[in-house]
Amino acid sequence: MPRRQIITLITDFGSNDYYIGVVKGVILGINPEVQIVDVCHHVASYDVFDAAFTLAQSYRYFPIDTIHLVVVDPGVGTARRPILARTMDYKFVAPDNGVLSLLYEREESIEVRHISSEHYFLNPVSQTFHARDVFAPAVGWLSKGVEVDKFGDPITDFAKFTPPKPKRVDDQLIKGVALRVDKFGNIITNITPEDVPDLFAENPPPFKIIINQQEITTLNLSYTMGKPSELFAIVGSSGFLEICTNRGSAAKTLNAARGADVGVVIGPATP
Amino acid sequence: MPRRQIITLITDFGSNDYYIGVVKGVILGINPEVQIVDVCHHVASYDVFDAAFTLAQSYRYFPIDTIHLVVVDPGVGTARRPILARTMDYKFVAPDNGVLSLLYEREESIEVRHISSEHYFLNPVSQTFHARDVFAPAVGWLSKGVEVDKFGDPITDFAKFTPPKPKRVDDQLIKGVALRVDKFGNIITNITPEDVPDLFAENPPPFKIIINQQEITTLNLSYTMGKPSELFAIVGSSGFLEICTNRGSAAKTLNAARGADVGVVIGPATP
Amino acid sequence: MPRRQIITLITDFGSNDYYIGVVKGVILGINPEVQIVDVCHHVASYDVFDAAFTLAQSYRYFPIDTIHLVVVDPGVGTARRPILARTMDYKFVAPDNGVLSLLYEREESIEVRHISSEHYFLNPVSQTFHARDVFAPAVGWLSKGVEVDKFGDPITDFAKFTPPKPKRVDDQLIKGVALRVDKFGNIITNITPEDVPDLFAENPPPFKIIINQQEITTLNLSYTMGKPSELFAIVGSSGFLEICTNRGSAAKTLNAARGADVGVVIGPATP
Repeated sequence: MPRRQIITLITDFGSNDYYIGVVKGVILGINPEVQIVDVCHHVASYDVFDAAFTLAQSYRYFPIDTIHLVVVDPGVGTARRPILARTMDYKFVAPDNGVLSLLYEREESIEVRHISSEHYFLNPVSQTFHARDVFAPAVGWLSKGVEVDKFGDPITDFAKFTPPKPKRVDDQLIKGVALRVDKFGNIITNITPEDVPDLFAENPPPFKIIINQQEITTLNLSYTMGKPSELFAIVGSSGFLEICTNRGSAAKTLNAARGADVGVVIGPATP
Repeated sequence: MPRRQIITLITDFGSNDYYIGVVKGVILGINPEVQIVDVCHHVASYDVFDAAFTLAQSYRYFPIDTIHLVVVDPGVGTARRPILARTMDYKFVAPDNGVLSLLYEREESIEVRHISSEHYFLNPVSQTFHARDVFAPAVGWLSKGVEVDKFGDPITDFAKFTPPKPKRVDDQLIKGVALRVDKFGNIITNITPEDVPDLFAENPPPFKIIINQQEITTLNLSYTMGKPSELFAIVGSSGFLEICTNRGSAAKTLNAARGADVGVVIGPATP
Repeated sequence: MPRRQIITLITDFGSNDYYIGVVKGVILGINPEVQIVDVCHHVASYDVFDAAFTLAQSYRYFPIDTIHLVVVDPGVGTARRPILARTMDYKFVAPDNGVLSLLYEREESIEVRHISSEHYFLNPVSQTFHARDVFAPAVGWLSKGVEVDKFGDPITDFAKFTPPKPKRVDDQLIKGVALRVDKFGNIITNITPEDVPDLFAENPPPFKIIINQQEITTLNLSYTMGKPSELFAIVGSSGFLEICTNRGSAAKTLNAARGADVGVVIGPATP
């Protein structure tokens, strides 16, 4: 007996409307045996980066052959293409707006196709709800075993953004940015240990992390090492430096949101 | 091998409590093989119309034989009956408070029964949580193949409300209402293209849509045709006229909520 | 064909992040055939009692052999142990922080083990995301049939808190507390009918329930018995006294939250 196919969903549809229900209905209408897994429907509205990040952090934990559907689609109704990407292990369906960019970065071998075969669309295709009319049918048919080349031809000019990288300004200063704030108020930056290796040396030099004019000078290994209301940095589960406070919201304390500048100053303070 | 049964859930239970978990547990306790699909648990509290709308927009996308459970139940503990409705393709379980009204409108042939056979209830039945004690067991046993006539007798005096219809006031003015606001701030009205055919003629006359004293004079085919911060109308995926703004919240811009009056004035402005 | 295994999830991870998606991916990566059921991901952040309550209210409704995963884990990265508890009917995986306390109260026979076999962990184990690295793999392997004794040895010194019990102050006064407020604004107290049997006698004496300086003197059998905007008490589906108002939020009306004092005064008012 072949294994049950798994389809994951990442959208910005929220939870108040019928949109997610319809997407699930269309998928199950094509393949009632598929297992649909909600990964996140609360990506920030229209926020392609946030969706790309959510996908990049989650897709590799799913079993081989999982199909990942990502619909954050501010360009619905324009000429932006629906695409189907395939790596060795997974398939991805999404609008061609860069939402797979972090995937393109991580995967060495990836094939991207323009989903052009209207044969697999709901008819008529609306101009406002391609998740229902184009994307859900595509993953439904994929999960039934339709070959990827049936959906359309390979393309190489797919949309791709470069995620913001930290910049080394001088010997002492690295400048990064807050990528997002999580539910607990942890501020996830775009700075990895590789960007600031000194901090992880056996005898690390003094340092400070500056965000919204406040300085953080502690690097902890776990959340619970933080003293009450103390702000500190940690290497989070996403692999990035996070600014946190134990059992509280660092984002609230710092009044910092996505996009906030984050500076790391390494070495003794200049006199 | 028979296909796995699907049960969908629409409730106003939200996501903070154990209520949904218990409903799922009771269903799976009766039929562990069933596939439960969350359609929406954030219907406005006690709002029978909102639940009816969510159901009407989603049920037909699910595969034939799907069982739809709808629990928005302000009358729990009164004499309002639990009911089981059956169309050619689907079964529906709900309190008899009008929540299936839009279904009665759409389906030509529908049979409604009073679920009276306590044999299928959890015992004792509480007066506060029929989703657990009555509705969940009913869909559980239905999914196991129990015949509908085992649950109770057909009734014809089921509760039914008439959804608000737009009114043609005179040659120029049609008056409608905002049915709901979605997650993106789009205002879904009760006006369909059939109600205002002039707007969709080859050479449409000038028109304005009036809501909260503001005038909208653009009808777009897709969200992205809107200029920044411009308000416009569109025929949304639900089949109704929506008031929108590209990548922003029309509801916030207009300070409009469910129930707001919506006027459509067709033809040249009176001098 | 053996029945499909069911794993339920209770966490404080919310719905905005990728955390839940990763947990599901890890479980399905180990056992793609398992059925994952979201019970609640909106337990109050770091709130062990709230998670314990959610579990206690829901677990017994699931079919025998269900595996319940509870992750509210403020101590992640400390020496607090991951544990596996087993009753006659269910298995439970959680951090050893008291989150299973209400279970220990209810179940006569329960075996608790320290999950120490790193063989079943993701490697390397992070210090910030044990739901991914420790707990999800544990339930995944459990659902594949790995015997409980493979995960580690039994322990008896597991963490356990005593839930707040109502206190009888004198002949007339019982003092309790608000355990939580639900989505509808109902205030769930820790007082059961057994604590105040007089209220449920055939001819109950006059009584008042005092919360935030307001007095409630009505005990109803169902929500709908309440007059508009009237506050009343009810024995809720959880088995506790709740303070409610019909189609409205008692918590808002009373400006009361979790932890509020609740007094029950029985008998004629003292002159």
